[in-house]
Amino acid sequence: MTAYVLGHKIPDSDSICAALSLAYLKNAIGEPAVAVRQGELNPETAFILDKFGMEAPAMKNSFAGENVYIVDHSDRAQSPDDLSEATVLGIVDHHKLGDITTSAPLECWIRPVGCSNTIIKEMFDYYQVEIPQGIAGIMLAAILSDTVIFKSPTCTDLDIRAVKELAAIAGIDDCQAFGVEMFKVKSQVDGTPARELVMRDFKDFDMNGKRVGIGQLETVDLSVFDNLKDALQADIAALKQEGARHSVCLLLTDIMQEGSELLAISDEPALIEAAFGATLSDGKVWLDGVLSRKKQVVPPLEKAFA
Amino acid sequence: MTAYVLGHKIPDSDSICAALSLAYLKNAIGEPAVAVRQGELNPETAFILDKFGMEAPAMKNSFAGENVYIVDHSDRAQSPDDLSEATVLGIVDHHKLGDITTSAPLECWIRPVGCSNTIIKEMFDYYQVEIPQGIAGIMLAAILSDTVIFKSPTCTDLDIRAVKELAAIAGIDDCQAFGVEMFKVKSQVDGTPARELVMRDFKDFDMNGKRVGIGQLETVDLSVFDNLKDALQADIAALKQEGARHSVCLLLTDIMQEGSELLAISDEPALIEAAFGATLSDGKVWLDGVLSRKKQVVPPLEKAFA
Repeated sequence: MTAYVLGHKIPDSDSICAALSLAYLKNAIGEPAVAVRQGELNPETAFILDKFGMEAPAMKNSFAGENVYIVDHSDRAQSPDDLSEATVLGIVDHHKLGDITTSAPLECWIRPVGCSNTIIKEMFDYYQVEIPQGIAGIMLAAILSDTVIFKSPTCTDLDIRAVKELAAIAGIDDCQAFGVEMFKVKSQVDGTPARELVMRDFKDFDMNGKRVGIGQLETVDLSVFDNLKDALQADIAALKQEGARHSVCLLLTDIMQEGSELLAISDEPALIEAAFGATLSDGKVWLDGVLSRKKQVVPPLEKAFA
Repeated sequence: MTAYVLGHKIPDSDSICAALSLAYLKNAIGEPAVAVRQGELNPETAFILDKFGMEAPAMKNSFAGENVYIVDHSDRAQSPDDLSEATVLGIVDHHKLGDITTSAPLECWIRPVGCSNTIIKEMFDYYQVEIPQGIAGIMLAAILSDTVIFKSPTCTDLDIRAVKELAAIAGIDDCQAFGVEMFKVKSQVDGTPARELVMRDFKDFDMNGKRVGIGQLETVDLSVFDNLKDALQADIAALKQEGARHSVCLLLTDIMQEGSELLAISDEPALIEAAFGATLSDGKVWLDGVLSRKKQVVPPLEKAFA
């Protein structure tokens, strides 16, 4: 029976590229698998797939009765709504351990590294499967994206080594330059509706029974948001209302300045302020050095909500 | 900061030996770790440690503020009561994925194999760390115990290969004979109080909100229980009452006949009967071919309770 390989809702580049690379590996070791996606490609991911000549996975949202591999998350909030009716054969992830449970033994390759594709590189090595050029390219791109070209505090030596080895296969001579080219695509916001921007990389978390949505937009130059901030703030206020959320945070991350402007709206703003030891002014505050939602935003928020 | 490595409550041989072998590996790669245990050694584990000249881990039940590695489980019901106040750095397990969650990224080595020590053997290979004779011996013994000397349906090629490689290091020429010697120790029940027997390998599960306790006793000859069954049935009835459990099951497993007699008491015996397609007579039924709680008992029960 063919297994589906899928990343999280509102997929980022790692979720799409990891689904493709893991599905390739599984087929190569004789386990039929096909990559799928739970949502639309963002512009960065479309650029990556185009650059390396890879097809996007098909959209699929229902998995009852199917076998699945989960990549890049282990939270029910980010997985398909009917996941409990599927059989989870395995999880490849680099986040905190979420609330997905199974009723049968499975394989989990979970590591505290910067990107799911770094772990899949380890799996290719473990199974001694050769990585084709296109797959190497998208894996490398996903790692550069997730680690913000090695600048994120989530980046580890394993990520850097994986990129080095994948670059040789993919034929990318200057990873830094390729990374900046990719982030420039990610920074294009002109003419895009506020809702689409907010949802580009948005995840819901259950924090002590409260629903907290956290979005992130990464750019090479924060000034692109200068004329958009009011619209973004109005939109996260609407999102909070629509989704019965306790709080919604949006990180506008400047990867060159290495920090993020936080836009936040909450039933208890004091919790958000306590989490970051910062005072919101007009619902905004600059958080110097904060690049990683996973490592620098979710843990302090969870602590404040505990 | 030293991390503690711990198996589940009411530890079996895999939980004790995996804590010791993973702690050894962690120290070898420069991460200070010390093995501990959550409960008393059973006679089989005491025999294994004595046979290979290894010290038992110290007892420890509180982990608030500590760093921990979890082996051989991923369920809160089997972990320390204050686990939520500890930092889980990693999990090595071969069961279904349980309900432990974390607030920071971690490493999980979870595989659908017969024994946690088979995965730790893979980790030794991954980190290219040499396994000393004593550690090889207890790892091998744990795998033979968990896989019922390769007879359990949970046993995989990886388990068999690990035992072969570990036997060469440990200097065990005849694994089959050593396994039977070990199971004879496990079969000794004379003079042991019923409660102690039931609790020797007992786990609680949350099945759709209901608490279900499942114990297992493995023997090379089921007749050793002939004069004990009434006492065992009375004891699981008491356990059900004391622990506000919905059901308690006890498997009396005959590894030579390759099956188990199930003793069960439940608020809804029909659920138990439906799970196994069998009719309880006097609270007992023979389940032919059933050797594995994990693979042949927990999944059908969870399905019946769903």
